Amino acid sequence: MTATRIPTWTRRHLLDVDDLSRAELEAVLDLGVELRARRAAGELSDTLRGTAVGLAFYEPSTRTRVSFELAARELGATVTDLSVAGSSVAKGESLVDTLRTLERTGVRMIVLRHAASGAPYLAARSLERAAILNAGDGTHAHPTQALLDALTLREALGSLEGARIVVVGDAVHSRVARSDLHALVRLGASVVLSGPPAWVNPFAEWPGLSVVTDLDAGLAGADAVMALRVQRERAAGGGVPSITEYVARWGLTAERLDRACPGAWLMHPGPANEGVEITAELSGDPRSLIGRQVENGVPIRMAVLSLLTEEMDRW
Amino acid sequence: MTATRIPTWTRRHLLDVDDLSRAELEAVLDLGVELRARRAAGELSDTLRGTAVGLAFYEPSTRTRVSFELAARELGATVTDLSVAGSSVAKGESLVDTLRTLERTGVRMIVLRHAASGAPYLAARSLERAAILNAGDGTHAHPTQALLDALTLREALGSLEGARIVVVGDAVHSRVARSDLHALVRLGASVVLSGPPAWVNPFAEWPGLSVVTDLDAGLAGADAVMALRVQRERAAGGGVPSITEYVARWGLTAERLDRACPGAWLMHPGPANEGVEITAELSGDPRSLIGRQVENGVPIRMAVLSLLTEEMDRW
Amino acid sequence: MTATRIPTWTRRHLLDVDDLSRAELEAVLDLGVELRARRAAGELSDTLRGTAVGLAFYEPSTRTRVSFELAARELGATVTDLSVAGSSVAKGESLVDTLRTLERTGVRMIVLRHAASGAPYLAARSLERAAILNAGDGTHAHPTQALLDALTLREALGSLEGARIVVVGDAVHSRVARSDLHALVRLGASVVLSGPPAWVNPFAEWPGLSVVTDLDAGLAGADAVMALRVQRERAAGGGVPSITEYVARWGLTAERLDRACPGAWLMHPGPANEGVEITAELSGDPRSLIGRQVENGVPIRMAVLSLLTEEMDRW
Repeated sequence: MTATRIPTWTRRHLLDVDDLSRAELEAVLDLGVELRARRAAGELSDTLRGTAVGLAFYEPSTRTRVSFELAARELGATVTDLSVAGSSVAKGESLVDTLRTLERTGVRMIVLRHAASGAPYLAARSLERAAILNAGDGTHAHPTQALLDALTLREALGSLEGARIVVVGDAVHSRVARSDLHALVRLGASVVLSGPPAWVNPFAEWPGLSVVTDLDAGLAGADAVMALRVQRERAAGGGVPSITEYVARWGLTAERLDRACPGAWLMHPGPANEGVEITAELSGDPRSLIGRQVENGVPIRMAVLSLLTEEMDRW
Repeated sequence: MTATRIPTWTRRHLLDVDDLSRAELEAVLDLGVELRARRAAGELSDTLRGTAVGLAFYEPSTRTRVSFELAARELGATVTDLSVAGSSVAKGESLVDTLRTLERTGVRMIVLRHAASGAPYLAARSLERAAILNAGDGTHAHPTQALLDALTLREALGSLEGARIVVVGDAVHSRVARSDLHALVRLGASVVLSGPPAWVNPFAEWPGLSVVTDLDAGLAGADAVMALRVQRERAAGGGVPSITEYVARWGLTAERLDRACPGAWLMHPGPANEGVEITAELSGDPRSLIGRQVENGVPIRMAVLSLLTEEMDRW
Repeated sequence: MTATRIPTWTRRHLLDVDDLSRAELEAVLDLGVELRARRAAGELSDTLRGTAVGLAFYEPSTRTRVSFELAARELGATVTDLSVAGSSVAKGESLVDTLRTLERTGVRMIVLRHAASGAPYLAARSLERAAILNAGDGTHAHPTQALLDALTLREALGSLEGARIVVVGDAVHSRVARSDLHALVRLGASVVLSGPPAWVNPFAEWPGLSVVTDLDAGLAGADAVMALRVQRERAAGGGVPSITEYVARWGLTAERLDRACPGAWLMHPGPANEGVEITAELSGDPRSLIGRQVENGVPIRMAVLSLLTEEMDRW
């Protein structure tokens, strides 16, 4: 990489991380670190003053919605939330019509979560001026989660360059996994994906990634292990084992984590099913970064909101 | 009209447009234009700083709720939204008790949408200090929609004086129609109402209005055509035709719109049932003002909020 | 009482009033009076600027939620509301996990209402930095209601020292009653509790309290009467009379209130079932303090939010 300074951010939407260069990824993380410090010191400036931000969550969420909302409000934005009872969202107006209406009321950035993979792309193509920030679409992408995970790991490990990260679980149905894999590989990590064959084999050809069914083998030399959330309704059937078998072979325990490098970190996007993906004991383990992942949510979303606003102002 | 300057606004509530004089209507539109420009330039002042505004939407809404919310917040108001799951609104406390409680917590303006025609009048009579802004009551009135429609038309046509406006559809059940008819007639327009007899004949005696069942005949000489939303459950029965017959006789198409004056404008309060009231093609037609109607929503609501606040401050 | 000045507030949470000393109770009321005056004069300062406050209402509420929200926002806080459709609250994430997530996003104070008695204590023990403000837990406590009731009574009576307050109704299932009894007794009042034996007898041993089944006898010498809300589903059964018998023996009417001292005050935490706890006529009686109770809700909540913030800043 030859860039000597932070590149200009040249996009209006944040749909996924796969179209961000390594320098752009690093720039978001750097700004996240800076904003986190300024927030802690009570020195945030009103970067988004006069900017209307709309929250359009078509799927339930606590952590993502709250952290986007706080990020926007603390930067001075005016926030309106569609995700309330009594919105036409409930009575079935089409997604595109609703978002176009939001845009025309003067909303400049729309934070969209939707059960349909690709919905934010449709939305972005349908809008003339407003920016779409993907807050999770179906089983496809969750870019701000990947950014906060990358920041958490970069700080814990010093750098992702050459780090060995094991990702465990239902990658096929996980928007978090897909975005994390993109970001981690691009930031220089070597990623090992482990889990039931039906959940990991489709990733066998990904560049920079190796798929290892046997988690115990995959853990050797790992600097960090990230457990994915198991949707109970997806376990059993389709070549995937029962929860009991999942726990036995891929559930993380303190003992199993000992197979990784000494001091290897544990991550989970939350909320964790304790006793399934990780033991209850592990959530509180000093090796757990789960709390820091949540803590990095607001600063990373502040960084993304700031960069998109700056870019839009440049037009 | 002999008034030489904008009259003083002398009301606390906004219940409908029928009690606004022509000069008062024009004053709201003028202030809407001014606030729109100041908003675009980032030069709004905090007129509503220290003022608490309550949103009480007992019926679903996206565009009206969001535009009232943004209008209030961008003018510096403190906004609280009753329309959330978890409000007593859900558990059936009486409307009047809920609004009196809001008033006593210090809420100064209450934006009320309710399924019962007349609810805002009951509310206004029950409150001692707070102002009621009607955001749509049953089939009765929707004053801010009429104001934004009037502004959109005034700008498109230069003036409403002598303009010929055709309104098409289910006027009997439409609060938008009733308020629009009042405003347009008072602003000097000549209004033609067209649709199935059961939906338009009750308006036969309105001053300044003519009722024409045959839309194609009514369109001759029209400067603008406003389609009303068809509630599918109201079509069929009671002397009203099927949707198919409605579309054939009163649905707007590019060809049908050609029967109006060259350059005649198209309006719809939204959300439109494309293929029923208007063709999908027409929404994107350069003659469509639908987008501008939505864009005028926030400035008009800012104007109304500002005028009511000013008046209340004078007491 | 020997304290000569307002004592330092030395707590992070507000879980109930039973652990507040008399001097601490008086300090909250005094600050409430001051903030009410500053609010009326438009002279509030942004005490909570940069402080994120989370509203977590797991039970419906209008007055408590709105008054906490306005209190926080008018003091400059950033408020986020979990109580919306589309929150994971709906999909059953555990209370503790949700609140810990809120804390980690930077929320500093969490206003919690929950159907389970004791939930705020569990929450407080589970958090590391954030403060819990109990906005009503099950049948246990409702401290801010008790504080606003105490303020309302103190102002109406001059002082609570030696005042005789009659509390009528279902005390056993009432969080309002339990917190009010603590606060009123500690502030020097002599409290008489009246109602069906099954609803009041469990309080027979409370210090400073006398239980009198016969309301008419209990009213003699009363300076104020506070009616509790009757939950219709709790009347009938378990030794408790029918609604009809309740109204006959414990329902408040203008005539019955005449048995108290001349000028005795009437209170109700609202919303009242008119015709049950009190007659419709009594709500509008000049002796009613019901409206003032609501009006004191925002200032008392401002006082509590300010004191907790100050204390947290001191750490």
